[in-house]
Amino acid sequence: MRALVFDGKLEYCADYPTPVPNAGEALIRVCYAGICATDLEITKGYMGFKGIPGHEFIGIVEKCADESLIGKRVVGEINLWCGTCEFCIGGNKTHCPNRTVLGIYKKDGVFADYVTLPVRNLHLLPDSISYLEAVFIEPLAAAFEILEQVELKDKKVCVIGDGRLGLLCAQVLALTGCRLTTIGRHPEKLSILKNRGLRTRDNADGLGREFDVAVDCTGSNDGLNEALRIVKPRGNIVLKTTVADRGAFDLNQIVIDEITITGSRCGPFGPAIKALAEKRVDVMPLVDKIFPVEEGLAAFEHAAKKGVLKTMLRF
Amino acid sequence: MRALVFDGKLEYCADYPTPVPNAGEALIRVCYAGICATDLEITKGYMGFKGIPGHEFIGIVEKCADESLIGKRVVGEINLWCGTCEFCIGGNKTHCPNRTVLGIYKKDGVFADYVTLPVRNLHLLPDSISYLEAVFIEPLAAAFEILEQVELKDKKVCVIGDGRLGLLCAQVLALTGCRLTTIGRHPEKLSILKNRGLRTRDNADGLGREFDVAVDCTGSNDGLNEALRIVKPRGNIVLKTTVADRGAFDLNQIVIDEITITGSRCGPFGPAIKALAEKRVDVMPLVDKIFPVEEGLAAFEHAAKKGVLKTMLRF
Repeated sequence: MRALVFDGKLEYCADYPTPVPNAGEALIRVCYAGICATDLEITKGYMGFKGIPGHEFIGIVEKCADESLIGKRVVGEINLWCGTCEFCIGGNKTHCPNRTVLGIYKKDGVFADYVTLPVRNLHLLPDSISYLEAVFIEPLAAAFEILEQVELKDKKVCVIGDGRLGLLCAQVLALTGCRLTTIGRHPEKLSILKNRGLRTRDNADGLGREFDVAVDCTGSNDGLNEALRIVKPRGNIVLKTTVADRGAFDLNQIVIDEITITGSRCGPFGPAIKALAEKRVDVMPLVDKIFPVEEGLAAFEHAAKKGVLKTMLRF
Repeated sequence: MRALVFDGKLEYCADYPTPVPNAGEALIRVCYAGICATDLEITKGYMGFKGIPGHEFIGIVEKCADESLIGKRVVGEINLWCGTCEFCIGGNKTHCPNRTVLGIYKKDGVFADYVTLPVRNLHLLPDSISYLEAVFIEPLAAAFEILEQVELKDKKVCVIGDGRLGLLCAQVLALTGCRLTTIGRHPEKLSILKNRGLRTRDNADGLGREFDVAVDCTGSNDGLNEALRIVKPRGNIVLKTTVADRGAFDLNQIVIDEITITGSRCGPFGPAIKALAEKRVDVMPLVDKIFPVEEGLAAFEHAAKKGVLKTMLRF
């Protein structure tokens, strides 16, 4: 099969061995896949991953013990949990210490014609969700994770960062009816939100400590420091993006103002699928460019450019 | 009156003007006062405070519009809130942006024969609490604040640090029935907890990521990094002490493991008074040395020594 393979260097391979599903797994033909910041980090050595990267996708089930699934369009949760440990039993399966992670940790990902995943990881897609929209379900689910962690109803909320995840988070948080502002530096990206009636700002100048909740989607250490500047005492900061370096932060303000900081990673697919199916979020303006898998290296180069929205691969 | 006064340098003053209570305030004769880490920081310039420091005390009401209070033993909440702002109305009066803070911010403190405080800040003491015990009510209330912030029932909890606040926090957290371990470096301090049947360790060697909650009472940036090493995914870290410098922290782990970090400052006096009155905590082993106020400078020198527990002033 065709695949992008990382082994210290990302390469396109035209004849990579097709994976064979284990018991409980389905073989899925990948239709479209999205390149995200984590994929870019992986090609710089993040997680020491080797193999096929990629974890945002839509595909069609080709082989599966449950024949009713064959031919169906699916997306898949990316954490392959054990199901028997303290975390899995306690409902924290995305934190299973025995997990592998699709295209990120010890499990080949979706930048290939075929991928295998446990059937329990799969979600069927309603017809009302297009192929391209479906590629956004995984990051959209990550945005919905915030709603599992912080009470937003009637709160004054700020999303910091207008990158891909920032734009998804803003749309998802807006569904709660909270009083939302998104701060970004890219007028053309902020216009995606403006067009949906959402409030935006191109900087934090003049903002006081006025937000109950600030969500850092900047992907930089500056994000937390900016959040600390605009969040109220006893406010919440949600860290949504990982950053390469250790940053320096003033713990005193966190203590004196009793700020709560919560890290936020993978989220629930169900609400993400529902919101897309009901057209309550619009991800299509986030599609930047689609490359055939053979041009995968060019796609990665494109995705790494400043300001690019979602770069996709098609198969 | 006798007073310790800080104006770039701490000095003893034998004839400082006695304060005059405003409307709604009581004049209180201070009996005993405790020196805490914040007082030591203030003498290094923290908060830019000038005047009489000190905020842990027990005193007797001498003047008050409500005559029923005169002659009564009282302790006092240290935040002087406005009562009319969004924070006060919302029940967050310790975060009132218009507040002054006893002996810390724009309000003379208790290292003097007399202090004034609003009557609404005062708490009457039951006879079962001794003078020396009462001096611990303010920091004990700060320990109870943790119980307002994090659910501890049946949780595996670690207090990191065996200083004054660590020893109080450990005793307060133990009241919840949680599975508690305290890590410290001072066998003689840990013995105070051991004597009460609490589990202690003299280092974190061999500990995995096994705690649901870790409470950092170290007063150093290392505390948060140690907490991050021993707390479970989706666990909580409570920051209880302020530190002088900005530290470097790995935000990635916070995101990947969805850790929640909460700053924790002043707490409720009611539960602290009740726990002391019912002898459910024992603060007396924390009394280190008591100096007459005239020897206040020597008291500060003593309090600043490594490993010293509670240094007090008597009037």
